[in-house]
Parts: sequence; structure tokens; C-alpha cells
Amino acid sequence: MRPVRITKTVGEYLLAPGALAHLGEVLRGRADGQDDRVLYLIDHYFRGGKLIERLPLKPADAILYVDTADEPTTDGIDALVRRVRQNPMPKAVVGIGGGATLDTAKAVSNLLTNDGAAADYQGWDLVSRPGVFKIGVPTVSGTGAEASRTCVMMNHARNLKLGMNSDHTVFDRLVLDPDLTATVPRDQYFFTGMDTYIHCVESLSGRYRHAFADACSDQALRLCRAVFLCEDMRSAANRERLMVASFLGGSAIGNSYVGLVHPFSAGLSMVLHTHHCVSNCIVMNVMDEFYPSATEEFRRMAAAQGVAVPRGLCRQLSEQQYRALYEATIVHAKPLTNALGDGFRDVLSFDKVREIFRMM
Amino acid sequence: MRPVRITKTVGEYLLAPGALAHLGEVLRGRADGQDDRVLYLIDHYFRGGKLIERLPLKPADAILYVDTADEPTTDGIDALVRRVRQNPMPKAVVGIGGGATLDTAKAVSNLLTNDGAAADYQGWDLVSRPGVFKIGVPTVSGTGAEASRTCVMMNHARNLKLGMNSDHTVFDRLVLDPDLTATVPRDQYFFTGMDTYIHCVESLSGRYRHAFADACSDQALRLCRAVFLCEDMRSAANRERLMVASFLGGSAIGNSYVGLVHPFSAGLSMVLHTHHCVSNCIVMNVMDEFYPSATEEFRRMAAAQGVAVPRGLCRQLSEQQYRALYEATIVHAKPLTNALGDGFRDVLSFDKVREIFRMM
Repeated sequence: MRPVRITKTVGEYLLAPGALAHLGEVLRGRADGQDDRVLYLIDHYFRGGKLIERLPLKPADAILYVDTADEPTTDGIDALVRRVRQNPMPKAVVGIGGGATLDTAKAVSNLLTNDGAAADYQGWDLVSRPGVFKIGVPTVSGTGAEASRTCVMMNHARNLKLGMNSDHTVFDRLVLDPDLTATVPRDQYFFTGMDTYIHCVESLSGRYRHAFADACSDQALRLCRAVFLCEDMRSAANRERLMVASFLGGSAIGNSYVGLVHPFSAGLSMVLHTHHCVSNCIVMNVMDEFYPSATEEFRRMAAAQGVAVPRGLCRQLSEQQYRALYEATIVHAKPLTNALGDGFRDVLSFDKVREIFRMM
Repeated sequence: MRPVRITKTVGEYLLAPGALAHLGEVLRGRADGQDDRVLYLIDHYFRGGKLIERLPLKPADAILYVDTADEPTTDGIDALVRRVRQNPMPKAVVGIGGGATLDTAKAVSNLLTNDGAAADYQGWDLVSRPGVFKIGVPTVSGTGAEASRTCVMMNHARNLKLGMNSDHTVFDRLVLDPDLTATVPRDQYFFTGMDTYIHCVESLSGRYRHAFADACSDQALRLCRAVFLCEDMRSAANRERLMVASFLGGSAIGNSYVGLVHPFSAGLSMVLHTHHCVSNCIVMNVMDEFYPSATEEFRRMAAAQGVAVPRGLCRQLSEQQYRALYEATIVHAKPLTNALGDGFRDVLSFDKVREIFRMM
């Protein structure tokens, strides 16, 4: 089956089971000369696996495996960029993996053409030059990293989790191949897929709304319900649906804002080093006060898939840890304003935030 | 209110009431030098109106008014291109109007950089070079011309209605300003909006399906229902909704195929010169056999808006006219195969097609 070619109205991408076989076509005219170096940034999970054999590798190309045990950090990205710079400049960067790997590919691509360090670009519209031509190949669905205009990085020096939000961060091409998500473990498949559900709920509940983001979120939520409230969330049809949901959710959130879950989740990731998607689920599980119907629906989805969302993580922390969690949460003024208005600090006092974390 | 900036994940466009005021920003860096000529192709309806005063016109720019009394023809496009070529090459083409004007702008842009005549490019993927940088500004919602990769033209010499289907036909930028659709007459607003409804129904009922087109069509239909089954289809919120529905519907159909309605509608337009959108509605109104629930819903929408769909148009035509209608319908093998499979000619015999036309 030939992949559907989505025209540039949606950012040019290929979508179909088996689409990975067409990666060579996507590189054609861009980086398919003998000396045109392609830099592959690939989730370390695939090292030595069959996926690597299927890539259209040339002698000039390079593969770097991305260790995704931890989320991308600004220091880690800078180290990667220094390593890539020891060799000739790549003509294309291909990221193959989940959100962390895709975000790494986006960040590296931008920093190869823009001076300075990753931390200099954490914020909004700070990247001035287009990065190296970049292609995203997601291997798990949900983060929306394939569609979004950000690449999230932890900055430990500043206790800050924030991305390079820029038009230049958007992938030039995508290869969406639902076959690649067939081997994702159940829990990870669920937690990652829920990222789409959660950021669409946040977007539709926010104050910053527009018809386009609403339409994308609305449809992405509908696809999530179809996938997660049925028996087999990992059927071939559901894997394709979730891939589209993730893309639409990313398109929505790339043009809108998240709400309460992501700031709290960022706090968890910063202080307790839980991964983004599982952090989101831990937070979503205690959002009854703010997103009552979505919280209830989220629990039904977890139950339907037999997935246990971790609890008890923050019940007994030190005051210093609660303070760190509070700081790493409250710093996210944009999404918190989107959720609660300019007075978000009045609602989210230190005591209130600690109370919410204690429920997790 | 500043327009929402939709990133290139969805083809870069501005969406907001009042977005037209930002057209100058969209041209910045592209065609804003003193001598950078911008060619405006504008629906003749706006000649002498206030809209023209709001454009960021420079002395080097040119306005050509597009007569939309008839649909675009290959000969008409060729004549326009010859006229434009008498002056220096424009740096940008801006189309402002409905589907006919937007399609004219897309065709002219492509032919300014590709040799030959419009008819040479009717078909799929025949345009080899990118056209002049093109911006679309729809003033009525529904055709999806703003998002699609085609520009439909009548070729009277070949009794054929067919577009230049090409990636190069897609607009580089869009300005989606729902304020511009506030003055569209009721009937036209309905008939044009129904184009979205109809091509999404066709896409979702076809044999060629994929999760992306399905998701866009599904959401576009939902927005159509919200707009046309409520009291005031032209409220500010509904005009914005319909603009997004039109874009999503165009994105869906640009990556999928129409079905039975469009071929019959093309027949009507070719032989009886009815406009595309009203032709679609005339056909949809008699599709009980093929799209029963959508036909019923379509009639409810027309009733809710107090719009009368023309009937009796084809009751008593000459055999020669029925033959011409049949030929201009059956020629559309791709959508008819999508709707009925490879054996579509067995279902749609001349007698059957005449019977269907007689109901209109």
C-alpha cells in the first residue's frame, strides 16, 4: 500500500502502514547525493534492531542513538550538537522515536544553524534562522511532538522545563507509520496516548480559544475515546487513529495553550524525574476540582485498558521538595493564565499546590 | 484582536475577525519592496467597494477583477495570464473572493512560471515548477479552494471540468477573516457552505479512505451541523466555524476523493452552466439512493435555513442534452470509482444517469 501524500496544507507528510519504506523518497532532492550527510537521531531502544536495517543509509550518513531514560536537557542537547559539529554539516536531520527523540532532533537541527546554547532559545520565537531540513518519524503516538512548534528541554540550572517555541522548530516532513507503534508496551502506549487527550482537554477548557484549535482538539478527543474506550487500543486501525489524533492534538496545542496539568506535570518531572507522559497521567488522576468530567473519563479509559496510574508518589515529601515542586509548577505563567486567568497565583497558593501534589 | 498565527503544520495562515488588516505582514519580506509587484485577483463583486481601500497597495501593484458570473475556463485563464505577462512579473499573487476567484489566482500563479496553456495542466501532478508566491483570502466559506491542491477549470473544447491537481497549486499563505463573509447573501452562503458538507459526505462514503481525511471530514461535518442546523447560520461564531470547516473539508478532500455528487454536478455546470455550489445542492437533493441519511440531513438543513434548492431543471431536456450530461458526468472516473468501485459504468448506465438527472 502506497502512503497517502498529505500536501503542504498540513505540513507535508506520509501516512500509512509501511510508510517508513518511503523515507528515501522524502530525502530525494534534499540529501540523497553521495556526500550529502544525513544525521539520524534514533531512540536507543532501536539500537541493533530491525528498524535500522530498513533505513536508506549511505556511507556519509551518521546515526546517533538518543538515551531517552531521562528527558532531554539543555546540557545534553549542547553536548550532542558539539559532537555533530565535529563532522561535516548534515543536509538533513531525521528523528526516529518518541517525543523525547523527536524533540532532540528538532533542537539539534535548530542549533546547527543558530549560534549559542540550547538554553538561549528556551522561550517564544527566539530562533532566528531555519534549522537543518528535518524529518520526524514517530514510533509512539500521543505527545504531538511531530506536529508542534516546540521541543521541550529540562534546564536544571534554572529549575525550568521549557521548549524552543518557534516556527523553525516545526518538522519539514513527517513519516507517520502506524506499524512502528505495534511493539510499544501497553502502559507506555496508554500513558503516551493520554498526552493527546490531556492537552486537548486543557486547550478546550482554557480562556485562549479559537475555532481552529477547538476543531482539532475536538476531533482528537473523539479519536482518543474511540481508541481508549474500546477493547483493543492497539489494533491496527486504532494505532492509525491514535497517530492522527496525536498529529491533530499537536496541531491544536501548537496553536493554543495547555492548562493546569502540564505545569504540575512539569513540576513532577523536574523534581522527581518522572517522565512527561506518566507525570501527566499522575496529575490528571487528581484533577477532579478543575476538570471533573475529563478526570472521570480519564479514569474510565485507564480502567478499560487495565492500566494502573501510579499513586502515592508525593504523599510524604519534605517541605523543601514541596517548595521545589511549587516553584517548578507556578513558573508556567502562560498555561496557568490560560486555565485560571491572570489571578492564577491567588488560586494556586503554596498550600493549595502542596495539597494537590499530596493527592498524587 | 490579533489573528492567531497557525504554524506551517497547517500551511501557515492567519485566522481571526479582522485578519485582512494583517495582509501587509504576510507580504513582508516577500513582496513589500517599492518595486515588488503584487498582483491582486479580486472578485468583481468588490470593485469600487470598501475592501479595496483596506488593501496595502503600493504604486507597483496591480488589481485585476475576476468576472465570476461564469466559472473559470481554461481559455479565460490563458487570456488573464497573457494580460499579466504584458507587465513585469509579480512577486506575489493575492486572490480575494470565493472559490472561482481563488482557483483563478492559483491557476494564474502556476502558469506564470510554467510554460504552455491551462489545459495542458488539467489532471494530476502535471505542474513541474512552483508558481508565484500565492496568498488566498476567501470571502465566502465552503468550497475548500483555500486549502485544496486543485483549481477547477471548465474546458469547453473537451467538454471537461477538471483542475490542476498539484502540490504547487496549494496556497503558500492564507488570510482567513470571517468578517469578510458577513455580507454574503443567504442563499449563496448556504449553497457554498454545503460544498463542504457534500464533499465530506462523499469522502467518508468512498472506498478510498484514510484516518487523516476521515478525521478532517468528520470534524468538518460536525461544524456544518452546528452551523446549518441552528437558527442563525451567519452569526459571527458560525461564520468563523464555517471558515474552519471549509479549511478542514478542503484539507480532507485535497487528500482524498469526492464521490457521486461532484461528477453529476460537473455535468450540470458543463451543460446547463449552473454554478458549482448550487449544482452540488441540486444533485445532493436527489441522492436518496446513494447517500440516504445525508440526503435527509441536507434537506433538514435547507429547511432550517429557509433555503429553496432549485428543482425541475432537467425534467424535460432533449436526448442530446441528456447525452451531453451523461458524457460530462461519466468522464470523472476517479470519484466515481471511489463511490462505486471499478464497475461504476455498470451501475451508471446512460438510462440510469438520465433518470437521476430527470429527478433534478
